[in-house]
Amino acid sequence: MEYPSNIIKELVDAFVKLPGIGKRTALRMVLSLLKQEEEDVKKLGELVLRMKTDIQFCQKCHTISDNELCHICSDNNRESNVICIIEDHRDLIAIENTKQFNGLYHVLGGVVSPIDGIGPEDLKIDSFVDRVRKDKPKEVVFALRATMEGDTTMYYIFNLLKELNIKVSAISRGISIGGELEFADEVTLGRSIVNRTNYTL
Amino acid sequence: MEYPSNIIKELVDAFVKLPGIGKRTALRMVLSLLKQEEEDVKKLGELVLRMKTDIQFCQKCHTISDNELCHICSDNNRESNVICIIEDHRDLIAIENTKQFNGLYHVLGGVVSPIDGIGPEDLKIDSFVDRVRKDKPKEVVFALRATMEGDTTMYYIFNLLKELNIKVSAISRGISIGGELEFADEVTLGRSIVNRTNYTL
Repeated sequence: MEYPSNIIKELVDAFVKLPGIGKRTALRMVLSLLKQEEEDVKKLGELVLRMKTDIQFCQKCHTISDNELCHICSDNNRESNVICIIEDHRDLIAIENTKQFNGLYHVLGGVVSPIDGIGPEDLKIDSFVDRVRKDKPKEVVFALRATMEGDTTMYYIFNLLKELNIKVSAISRGISIGGELEFADEVTLGRSIVNRTNYTL
Repeated sequence: MEYPSNIIKELVDAFVKLPGIGKRTALRMVLSLLKQEEEDVKKLGELVLRMKTDIQFCQKCHTISDNELCHICSDNNRESNVICIIEDHRDLIAIENTKQFNGLYHVLGGVVSPIDGIGPEDLKIDSFVDRVRKDKPKEVVFALRATMEGDTTMYYIFNLLKELNIKVSAISRGISIGGELEFADEVTLGRSIVNRTNYTL
């Protein structure tokens, strides 16, 4: 593709590095940015410049934060003896939006995935074990993705926690609310039968 | 949605203003940006800051340009007596990619659309008529979108060109190459029959 201006070309190249953005979409975004008010564009540029320097990571749970401790870790109303292990910041936002969890989090930064060259040492696993040793939580809740990589990561951490004698749980897996059985995959449906919920009448 | 950091929130708000980007996608993009090398992020920020000041528009055809005249208008190998009227810069890139057009362009900046409050005075129509009066091109090719708004704009400019006695054409409309008739809409199929191409054997 030939671009009418060098800045446009470089901007398209920068936008293409973002997830799910191809050259056409990037160009559409850049041209739309060019139509925006000068003030808005300037603000975006400044925010991007500031993000790498100003954004910190919580020293306890490693989530994105404006301070040394994030707003969750420093909130006294949260149950500090329940820690939910998640992959990244988006998972934290997703779980927070459900308003069903009032404990703390621990952001691993990914899952173990040999195919992508991600080993346990690339994740915040050591810091998690240290944290558990120090804070002795009542329960650890795993909320990792339902894939081979998520399971591998979970069992890897299970082994490290074994000797610490802590209650460990994982979010339930099954048919989505509103999901029809005929469209569910066999493994999920099978698991949802094995792990069926008991009701007392 | 609650965000872990103020900068993240403001960045998401800025990305959401881009076309086709919702809050979730914006957040995904911002978090991915946060994972990129500091150098790349800095470059993006600087490019965004420079775009509004450094990018110019060609004084002749109004396309994006690094100079007063764009690389097409200043190219002596182009047929300067054929002008193709297009809506925006993406159309220029799309037509250039076909390598089937060697004339010059004129970027209107949109099409007449009363519903969006865009009248002829908001487009580069006056400058086009002046240009035709001055340069007296051999042919004007319309390449606007195949919608009511595109057609309205075309007929509006037709009327202004009438007295100038110039050859006017428009890109052909019909069934896409590889398109199956049964999936084509009636209007397109009807037009493709009326405007059928004659072959001499």
